[in-house]
Amino acid sequence: MVSVVSVQQLLTPAFTVDIQKVENNARRMIERCQALGVQLRPHMKTHKTLECADIMTGGSRRCIVVSTLAEARFYADRGFDDILYAYPLPFDKVDVCAELAECLEMFHVLIDSEEALAELTKRQLKDGKSWLVWLKVDCSNGRVGVRPEDPAALILAKSIAECEGVELAGVYAHCGNSYQATGVKEIQAVAQETTTATLGFMEKLEKAGVRCPRCSIGSTPTCSHPIPDMARLNELHPGNYIFYDVQQMMIGSCQMDDIAVRVLTRVIGHYPQRNQLLVDCGWMALSLHSLGMLPTGYAIIDGHPDLKLVGMTQEHGKIEPTSGKLDFDKFPLGSLISLIPYHVSALVWQCADSCYSKKALLPTQEGDCTLDLLIGYS
Amino acid sequence: MVSVVSVQQLLTPAFTVDIQKVENNARRMIERCQALGVQLRPHMKTHKTLECADIMTGGSRRCIVVSTLAEARFYADRGFDDILYAYPLPFDKVDVCAELAECLEMFHVLIDSEEALAELTKRQLKDGKSWLVWLKVDCSNGRVGVRPEDPAALILAKSIAECEGVELAGVYAHCGNSYQATGVKEIQAVAQETTTATLGFMEKLEKAGVRCPRCSIGSTPTCSHPIPDMARLNELHPGNYIFYDVQQMMIGSCQMDDIAVRVLTRVIGHYPQRNQLLVDCGWMALSLHSLGMLPTGYAIIDGHPDLKLVGMTQEHGKIEPTSGKLDFDKFPLGSLISLIPYHVSALVWQCADSCYSKKALLPTQEGDCTLDLLIGYS
Repeated sequence: MVSVVSVQQLLTPAFTVDIQKVENNARRMIERCQALGVQLRPHMKTHKTLECADIMTGGSRRCIVVSTLAEARFYADRGFDDILYAYPLPFDKVDVCAELAECLEMFHVLIDSEEALAELTKRQLKDGKSWLVWLKVDCSNGRVGVRPEDPAALILAKSIAECEGVELAGVYAHCGNSYQATGVKEIQAVAQETTTATLGFMEKLEKAGVRCPRCSIGSTPTCSHPIPDMARLNELHPGNYIFYDVQQMMIGSCQMDDIAVRVLTRVIGHYPQRNQLLVDCGWMALSLHSLGMLPTGYAIIDGHPDLKLVGMTQEHGKIEPTSGKLDFDKFPLGSLISLIPYHVSALVWQCADSCYSKKALLPTQEGDCTLDLLIGYS
Repeated sequence: MVSVVSVQQLLTPAFTVDIQKVENNARRMIERCQALGVQLRPHMKTHKTLECADIMTGGSRRCIVVSTLAEARFYADRGFDDILYAYPLPFDKVDVCAELAECLEMFHVLIDSEEALAELTKRQLKDGKSWLVWLKVDCSNGRVGVRPEDPAALILAKSIAECEGVELAGVYAHCGNSYQATGVKEIQAVAQETTTATLGFMEKLEKAGVRCPRCSIGSTPTCSHPIPDMARLNELHPGNYIFYDVQQMMIGSCQMDDIAVRVLTRVIGHYPQRNQLLVDCGWMALSLHSLGMLPTGYAIIDGHPDLKLVGMTQEHGKIEPTSGKLDFDKFPLGSLISLIPYHVSALVWQCADSCYSKKALLPTQEGDCTLDLLIGYS
């Protein structure tokens, strides 16, 4: 149910966004990239909304990354272009990719194998258009990509560059291993390793006479704390920074105050015999991503460091004090509790102008709180 | 993307349903309830689709349970009635409940506190209609409800029964503690405990002269293996049994062959240096509910007991052998792998004729596999 109301009137559970923090997070990332002299290509997978995409691109609707074709179509249908589908080309979706490549000015795909290149060449684009192909390199992240030191990487880059109907558009690395870091020093060590490996591979390409116009690396931790060498890259492609979350705070990407999202929930039960409150937020609204391993359980309970979200089922959450007896009078039935989520990308909310059940942001007319954008869930 | 295609043509990840198994699971539960002489009131929260609701109610579109008001409205809008909103009355949603109670023949709400009863009485229903109120009792499940042995339970039942504009419609217990059971014997111990406690409370009501027309207990484990005393109840309200899943199989609710759902995924990468396949199914399609604790990781890989889904990110899954070297020739890029999900209620798929991003079931024209109903995800 979508409604423009004050926070107190919101039906819960409700995913809420502080638009001021979103704009600050977006502006700081734009400024960081300007200072480095690199292009920002923001990732859409965390929010999947039109509104955040406009904020992240500064309204240009150009130069974005997506992780699914549902996202690609969603943005293409709304006037976005220069879209990079940063996902190892799935062979069942070459036709859908071709349609996007034919209707957009620039639709980029990503591969890490000769087999994927062969699939692309089976489907020539109309009007003599070339496939824009990025080579994915794996700089110690260990998910997708060819290791840049592997001779196969250079061979594949050459194959792409020399292939009829295909253009080598760039080299792409994801520093997902920065999610194992704690603190700026460790984040920057990953940033340095990925940058050095990517730039080293670009040099190798140049020496081998393989023309490659650009390279891009990204992850919210590394792009929130860039190192000087990142100025030698062409693009950065972080995504989660638009909202941030408890996980990013624990890694060291942001401060608590930068986290722009809350899941609001209401007290629906008092159970003094087990010293617990019940709230109307379960894993449908919050996800299980924290695994309950935070000192405060499955989330941080805003303003109540002494409370712990100890368990969730589909639509219920159990809250108890970290120690001692709960003062139930402080939390009457129907009262609001605000949860700071662990991993915001995992939250799914209702559809509006967004893809994949992610709901658009709605400006509220009222100003009784710091939340200017409210997203109802229930 | 919704399309009627063969399994080989499905875009992945795809949530697929074997309609024959769904119908068998539904029929067996109907027969079990008929044999006991109790009314089946199936729960909708696992599937949230029109099609499964029709199969579970035998087409009557009457007598169902829902866990959210989005589900309630979805079914009410499609001609369903006698809907029990089995969730502790949330104070922010009394108006929505009242609208449903006023437009349906029977819309039941559930409470476990005097405060909730007071909220109901603040909103009188039109045309002299009474609120149909179920009292939730907690028979060792430890989530919602008054303990039936607690004197407050009888006092609350009396309050409901004597309250103007309110009718005590029933006593409701959820045997969610059956999810901690392993094997039929342990499941039936929970069934016995819940049944005995519920029936004991009904006797207490009768002795106290509190009229209460019915009682209902439910959970998929207990209703899949009912005990004779359950014939003395009036209703059963299981839900997950329509699909079943790995969790239910491990509890002992069903056999592997009863599980009606698969998440289909495709191989999108070969990484011999780390002995891994990459597939296009991450936690967006499968959820993290198994916590990766199965011997085969985050899911069971259908037909490949020697493979393990060792990790997932948003849209990627990593598969490796449980031991030894992977034979990559067996799993070419683009080939399909079928995953048996751990907890099907946690899976979210695209919207069609369903609520909350859960997609309707589509009959396929083709018969190249045992899956007659296919649900595309990507």
